[in-house]
Amino acid sequence: MLNRAQLISEIHKKRSFLCVGLDSDKTKIPKHLLSEPDPVFAFNKAIIDATRDYCVSYKINTAFFEADGWMGWQSMQKVFDYIPEGILKIADAKRGDIGNTSHQYAKAFFDTLGADAITLAPYMGNDSLAPFFEYPGHWGIVLALTSNPGSADYEQQKVGSEFLYEVVLKNTCKLGNPENLMFVVGATKAQEFEIVRKHAPHNFLLVPGIGAQGGSLAEVVKYGKTADVGLLINASRSIIYASSGFDFADAAAHEALKIQVEMAGFL
Amino acid sequence: MLNRAQLISEIHKKRSFLCVGLDSDKTKIPKHLLSEPDPVFAFNKAIIDATRDYCVSYKINTAFFEADGWMGWQSMQKVFDYIPEGILKIADAKRGDIGNTSHQYAKAFFDTLGADAITLAPYMGNDSLAPFFEYPGHWGIVLALTSNPGSADYEQQKVGSEFLYEVVLKNTCKLGNPENLMFVVGATKAQEFEIVRKHAPHNFLLVPGIGAQGGSLAEVVKYGKTADVGLLINASRSIIYASSGFDFADAAAHEALKIQVEMAGFL
Repeated sequence: MLNRAQLISEIHKKRSFLCVGLDSDKTKIPKHLLSEPDPVFAFNKAIIDATRDYCVSYKINTAFFEADGWMGWQSMQKVFDYIPEGILKIADAKRGDIGNTSHQYAKAFFDTLGADAITLAPYMGNDSLAPFFEYPGHWGIVLALTSNPGSADYEQQKVGSEFLYEVVLKNTCKLGNPENLMFVVGATKAQEFEIVRKHAPHNFLLVPGIGAQGGSLAEVVKYGKTADVGLLINASRSIIYASSGFDFADAAAHEALKIQVEMAGFL
Repeated sequence: MLNRAQLISEIHKKRSFLCVGLDSDKTKIPKHLLSEPDPVFAFNKAIIDATRDYCVSYKINTAFFEADGWMGWQSMQKVFDYIPEGILKIADAKRGDIGNTSHQYAKAFFDTLGADAITLAPYMGNDSLAPFFEYPGHWGIVLALTSNPGSADYEQQKVGSEFLYEVVLKNTCKLGNPENLMFVVGATKAQEFEIVRKHAPHNFLLVPGIGAQGGSLAEVVKYGKTADVGLLINASRSIIYASSGFDFADAAAHEALKIQVEMAGFL
């Protein structure tokens, strides 16, 4: 578990607000790992060893593990168990369902898997998210404005005078507070961050889209950063697939360090 | 796999459009099963044996299995494998993410787990759902209007002159067709079904909320049924937890039969 004060302290200690996304596609990991007993875990273990000094969080994308069924979940459990103390463990799972089902998901991710935080899809409304906020010391990270083209379909539609993602920000802030609630915000434009910060001035934002997805770190910091930093910026593929050879871990460390150095300049 | 024509044929053969929801909460299954090597599978196996003649679909709620981590996923795999031919296997998973992640979820549920259908959360827009419709012979079941109180938070908000769930119905119909696309509709009011059927006149609807959640079968049939039936009506707790004693399977069969007989009257 990592509370807000501890997270902020780690950010300043490491001079980094980088979240490394572990989207470990079996078809993309270095070929020489395929002879390992658990190639996906071996890959993630090496990536964690190589990048742990440069990041404050790992985001585990559940889909890439579920693709291998129960054996994938076994690898995922090993990855969660392997992440060192003091680093925020995010299950990027986009869950959300009626109350008694969400309660089971909270149990799955917080109790069984040992995640500190989970990403949540808000479509079914506040009662579908509430069970995740009944776990002291844990975080819900709610989808607000995502960076994919489909964000135009609903998130950026107007509900009355506001965007749907604004309504999500406002409603969800009734469930949690900056100690246990973050938002996924794939914004890059100043105007979007202005809207987000109007409704969620103190919440941490998990920002995807740096690196392979092409977002600019400087822009995000300029518009999204708060006095308490308030940003976790994710990079996945640009780090973990920096090389597909025997040097993949060194290459990942190199990419993570590059981002950390850039981030230090903003702190 | 079960295509639309086969599903309709099974409905008429069994004189039932019942979907049995397998929400197998370990704390609620009969105590005498806890000494089995895999209590959750033993429970589901007995429920399937007892109810398979009275239903055309099983809906496996992934949360209840994930609560036990990788061992839960192992039980879930066994449940999927055990469901007989000719019965639609729905993974009630409410997934949805950016394209390359949704592609991994489609692989997880359709290829690895062997589901025929998966429930999907539409918040991130059409590109987050598209990968699920690239699997011939499989179904995406998209959340439209759910039956929980939180459906008022976003689903029933107005976007221009339409409810958000209407916009979801319209947009999603561009991705799929009645051969591979269903919707979750927790409606009970005539007016709601009128709106749903305006946008999705031929799609099957997966309707929760009969039984423990208290919906009326007659009302749903009256407003939602089409010439091709077009309805799968789910009951979970009222069937699977009909008894917590040694007679749980018989009690489940009895409850499922009662619903089947009522359904036969509407066919």
